[in-house]
Amino acid sequence: MTEPVFPSIAIIGTGLIGASIARAAAEYGAAGSVNLYDVSDDVRQRAAGLGLGDVAETLQAAVADADCVLLCVPVGALAAVAAAAVPHMKTGAILTDVGSVKGEAAAALMAADDGRVHIIPGHPIAGTEQSGPEAGFATLFRDAWHILTPGPSTDEAYLAGVDALTRFWQALGSKVETMDSARHDRVLAITSHLPHLIAFNIVATAFDMETVEQGEVVKYSAGGFRDFTRIAASDPVMWRDVFLTNKEAVLECLGRFSEDLAVLQRAIRWGDGDMLMREFTRARTIRKAIIDAGQDSSAVNFGRNPHLDKETGES
Amino acid sequence: MTEPVFPSIAIIGTGLIGASIARAAAEYGAAGSVNLYDVSDDVRQRAAGLGLGDVAETLQAAVADADCVLLCVPVGALAAVAAAAVPHMKTGAILTDVGSVKGEAAAALMAADDGRVHIIPGHPIAGTEQSGPEAGFATLFRDAWHILTPGPSTDEAYLAGVDALTRFWQALGSKVETMDSARHDRVLAITSHLPHLIAFNIVATAFDMETVEQGEVVKYSAGGFRDFTRIAASDPVMWRDVFLTNKEAVLECLGRFSEDLAVLQRAIRWGDGDMLMREFTRARTIRKAIIDAGQDSSAVNFGRNPHLDKETGES
Repeated sequence: MTEPVFPSIAIIGTGLIGASIARAAAEYGAAGSVNLYDVSDDVRQRAAGLGLGDVAETLQAAVADADCVLLCVPVGALAAVAAAAVPHMKTGAILTDVGSVKGEAAAALMAADDGRVHIIPGHPIAGTEQSGPEAGFATLFRDAWHILTPGPSTDEAYLAGVDALTRFWQALGSKVETMDSARHDRVLAITSHLPHLIAFNIVATAFDMETVEQGEVVKYSAGGFRDFTRIAASDPVMWRDVFLTNKEAVLECLGRFSEDLAVLQRAIRWGDGDMLMREFTRARTIRKAIIDAGQDSSAVNFGRNPHLDKETGES
Repeated sequence: MTEPVFPSIAIIGTGLIGASIARAAAEYGAAGSVNLYDVSDDVRQRAAGLGLGDVAETLQAAVADADCVLLCVPVGALAAVAAAAVPHMKTGAILTDVGSVKGEAAAALMAADDGRVHIIPGHPIAGTEQSGPEAGFATLFRDAWHILTPGPSTDEAYLAGVDALTRFWQALGSKVETMDSARHDRVLAITSHLPHLIAFNIVATAFDMETVEQGEVVKYSAGGFRDFTRIAASDPVMWRDVFLTNKEAVLECLGRFSEDLAVLQRAIRWGDGDMLMREFTRARTIRKAIIDAGQDSSAVNFGRNPHLDKETGES
């Protein structure tokens, strides 16, 4: 990078995503200076200790000079944080977020719009099951998709803002796509929200079996269960907000999932091996499509923070 | 290893597991000689080309001199393969298997019992989503559990056979446990069989959504879905047989899973954030138990064959 995309950015909320943006922006020279704020005193201190950037004592101080403000808080907190930030932002600055649900996120950000800032919701398709500022790492967004859901404005300054935000995420290594928020929420409901809900559920089911001891579930988890526990270890607050704010799309996927599962259940009960064989073969074909499309770089983008020790990495 | 546990072994079925046993037995000196057989001409040729061992032209020739015969075929094929093998085995030799369901496997092996061989069913809790002889690698069983479900015999020679088989799997790097087959099937139903069924199902559901294009599902699969497709890429024949032969335990788990999912569904519909928060927090605690128990060495035991190229590794 010869020149940073933004002379100054502010990151509000320094969990896994916020901390990773801070590290990536510094590492790849995407921002001249990085201001940080977190509502938790403890997290602010940890973020400062990690050297993630200039930690401000108030939200207002953090955003005052920023050319781009990135809200990295759970979707349920977006409205309040946006309302507190916007009046203190520079005229012409960009306000974006990283929420996993975009319809509700856009509504929350737009409610704070005073006509002076450019509101451009966004969502990085990247993460790990870790939380907290210690979990952040610079390569999290590399080769990951970043979806922007800009508003309908054709104002030249607004479009220049979308362009700048695109270049910022590209500088962090992301591939940037633009789509409308309703489509985003439908796609993510099936590719991310339903898988997480299922993972949370199977972990709970396993631990409520009276006929199998919890110790045995842990001990023999390598047979498949362990992979679900990793997914189900993601931040509870973030996921609660996802399901509360993308309700319709998730319930639609869930209804179909349960319907399909009932068919498999019946095939098992009645010993319909041909039907099971057909479904399982189909699933394998789909996996191949993902490998062929080069979307399987999971070790980098949806894996573990390489800087965290495995045994103590859970926060 | 100073001395091989068995002077000679025979591996029947040279897919992922059979080929991995062949490689591990040679690498760690657990067997003096390795004889192989696969019912497929093509697979036999590939196994020979890979140098996995002495590939025999008939099942009978493969087992004739073996001190231990390992049946590495789908559970549904065990009865026929055992019936064909036993009459040609040496008196006092061991017959074992690697099937994921042990009640049915034990019944299939016992049906072939002529009183001359020692039948000791077994199951390595290790695997990858790959299939075929090329997928095998020597470290697959390292630090993985291997469950033996011996019969009730207290005959000295039989117990010596169990001891030898235990030492064989330990030589391959496994941690060996003994339990009865009914308990095995209950534990594996929840830790392995249900997770796989759920993964197969969610992949099918995702690809039947009319409101989301398949290309989009592939493109944005990093949000969680991709992990399910990996699990769902496992061998369809093997998994069909698992569900047909561990029906009762799987249906019991599945009933509970659906019940629990209905409760989550209702919480989403009615916006019960507290309930979602409680369940998600609990799942995270369980993940921690798995990490603390050191059962998370997934990169080695349930990961990808390190010798296979990622892009062409699907068979």
